[in-house]
Amino acid sequence: MTKGNLLFAQSGGPTAVINASACGVIRTALAHADIDRVLCARYGIDGVLKQDFVDASQLDTEQIDLLINSPASAFGSCRTKLPTLDDTAVYSNIRDIFEQNNIRYFVYNGGNDSMDTINKIARYFDSCNYQCACVGVPKTVDNDLAVTDHCPGYGSSAKFIATTMHEIALDTAVYARGRVTIVEAMGRDTGWLVGAAALATAHGAGPDLIYLPETTFDIEDFAQQCKKIMTDKGRCLVAVAEGIKDSNGQFIATVAHNTNDTFAHTQLGGVCYYLAEYLTTQHNIHSRAIELSLPQRCASHIASKVDTHEAYLVGATAVQRAVQGITNAMVVIVRTSNSPYTVELDTVCIDQVANAIRYVPEHFIDTVNHCMTAQYIEYALPLIQGETTLAYHNGLPRYSRIMAGKQQ
Amino acid sequence: MTKGNLLFAQSGGPTAVINASACGVIRTALAHADIDRVLCARYGIDGVLKQDFVDASQLDTEQIDLLINSPASAFGSCRTKLPTLDDTAVYSNIRDIFEQNNIRYFVYNGGNDSMDTINKIARYFDSCNYQCACVGVPKTVDNDLAVTDHCPGYGSSAKFIATTMHEIALDTAVYARGRVTIVEAMGRDTGWLVGAAALATAHGAGPDLIYLPETTFDIEDFAQQCKKIMTDKGRCLVAVAEGIKDSNGQFIATVAHNTNDTFAHTQLGGVCYYLAEYLTTQHNIHSRAIELSLPQRCASHIASKVDTHEAYLVGATAVQRAVQGITNAMVVIVRTSNSPYTVELDTVCIDQVANAIRYVPEHFIDTVNHCMTAQYIEYALPLIQGETTLAYHNGLPRYSRIMAGKQQ
Repeated sequence: MTKGNLLFAQSGGPTAVINASACGVIRTALAHADIDRVLCARYGIDGVLKQDFVDASQLDTEQIDLLINSPASAFGSCRTKLPTLDDTAVYSNIRDIFEQNNIRYFVYNGGNDSMDTINKIARYFDSCNYQCACVGVPKTVDNDLAVTDHCPGYGSSAKFIATTMHEIALDTAVYARGRVTIVEAMGRDTGWLVGAAALATAHGAGPDLIYLPETTFDIEDFAQQCKKIMTDKGRCLVAVAEGIKDSNGQFIATVAHNTNDTFAHTQLGGVCYYLAEYLTTQHNIHSRAIELSLPQRCASHIASKVDTHEAYLVGATAVQRAVQGITNAMVVIVRTSNSPYTVELDTVCIDQVANAIRYVPEHFIDTVNHCMTAQYIEYALPLIQGETTLAYHNGLPRYSRIMAGKQQ
Repeated sequence: MTKGNLLFAQSGGPTAVINASACGVIRTALAHADIDRVLCARYGIDGVLKQDFVDASQLDTEQIDLLINSPASAFGSCRTKLPTLDDTAVYSNIRDIFEQNNIRYFVYNGGNDSMDTINKIARYFDSCNYQCACVGVPKTVDNDLAVTDHCPGYGSSAKFIATTMHEIALDTAVYARGRVTIVEAMGRDTGWLVGAAALATAHGAGPDLIYLPETTFDIEDFAQQCKKIMTDKGRCLVAVAEGIKDSNGQFIATVAHNTNDTFAHTQLGGVCYYLAEYLTTQHNIHSRAIELSLPQRCASHIASKVDTHEAYLVGATAVQRAVQGITNAMVVIVRTSNSPYTVELDTVCIDQVANAIRYVPEHFIDTVNHCMTAQYIEYALPLIQGETTLAYHNGLPRYSRIMAGKQQ
């Protein structure tokens, strides 16, 4: 591959470890003999189109080091989806920008929609013979990318959710007579995140009921289950995904609000409040709702060490593969053994990944008892292992100020 | 004081470190030559009345050690408020129970209402010459107990809130065009908790606006402030207390729901959703709400080391003072120096504390800029210092299972 510059950008919703991948990309690229300059676009593909670039060699080394344990997307993100390939104006513009900046390696870090972006750019470059290796770095707390065993970001969110469920379970057990507590995790299409609540069960403090988008949610059956557990235990802890659906495939949350975001997905969140209200008003069951909200994707202070390490490696590997000339590819994690847990990194053609959704498989869900199976626990447990060592300053974690610095 | 047994119980809402106090009480009492047996009542004063006691000498030593870093109230809690002293039946019953069990030391751990309970019991015992030293151990995330410089529990909640605000501030800054994010902290009457959000400001990632119950909340002025910041910065981060009130002293939250809890306080929580909805519908400002909810009082995984240490000491001191014959008293923390931060423990007559509320003083609040003053930061910063060392098992913190064990 021609010697040239590498362009890196972050896209989609942040994770607790997306910046660990950025650190892996930047350090590896800065050190690589075949790469001249390392440019980081601000705000994802939007910044690429505006040529809003940060030269990584100008960044403070300590701030790059801090990226490993810092939440959010240090270089900013976007939710822009590129048009279809027959709308050539955008792609020809991107090609011009790349050529002008001698960009021969493009590493893009994101989820489903970001992989679609790389896929389109790589295919366009191929069609017009512009030589540039385009490699995707997977990230998503949702864990719904195809092919890869799991996604960087998931393990840390799972650790946060399981830890928080554990703490909430203990907290809500303090009164002799409890209530129904409904905790809502993210997850529009898949139940990977809400499933992680089950990891607290081994500590004697997990949810009594777990509901995923993969299975039909029957609100009356749900109420009966809660009633039964209230009678048996005097309290009931429920974990629901924001994307639970009724038998018609309609989001339960759409009853409450029905707006659309950029991708014409239905905007969700807050279904726990609806369910608590339903139990209270329709069944006279004292209930409370807790939406875990943004902290489940940005709580770097309780990130998984395994996840952080893998996120870094996936970023580093993307650079190495791009320099080898691999293009239209995404780095994937292959689990080679579960005990001891070992993984290898590989790349797959991004056609296999773009716009595909990996659902929680049936054998991970116990639909009779509304909980996760032992096979799920076996799958997820290695991903939440280990704690990271954060630098603290004045009682709070020190996070990279690359983004904050630029804003000032 | 006559040699006899010590009775300990926990009351009110839990904190991240209430069990550290329990550990201080139990270890000190078990080791004390003047104390025969150490009884822990389950579910606070309710368990006292039912003689539902756990003998601390029967508890597993490792489980007692784990209490130091465990959330929730290990022995259960209650929200029972005792009647006035002229309703003598209850008090005479309590006296009988105490006499029957030879209880000569009573240590009760709680907030305002719990101090009222001790106050009444101590006064009754005094009136009928029953010899028993009654000492209160303060705890409340609300930090609103009088006399003491601060309350065990507050520092850890403040550390959680500041850390989470820091992470949310970074997460919500990732898109080029942001929105208003409204984060709600607990605090019905006082703004100590929401004020802690300001501790993230020194890290370049604090809230733009903070609203406390101590100052009048004008929703139109609030909307204008948000609008201005959106124009200037493209995003706006707000921290509000659940108990913000309008110029008539009415809770803003009562607009949304108006139910009463046991103490005839107005049940609050969720005002952030109302404000986000208001900005969106009345001012067309894209807004989102995040209610920090229970994790702010049970996130022991990010507890403050200073707070945990002080909670333990306050528990230990209560036992020592009770044995010295001090009664109708609460242990207080006296700050002897701020730099270096040093404290001494003392006791005060509980008459000074019971049913009093300590508000955030005026010089801690910058009402013009809707933020906290440097004096507040100076006050609060020492309380969030240091991190605790948790034992982890299978990727999650190991917490004491004393309570969970009893339930099975």
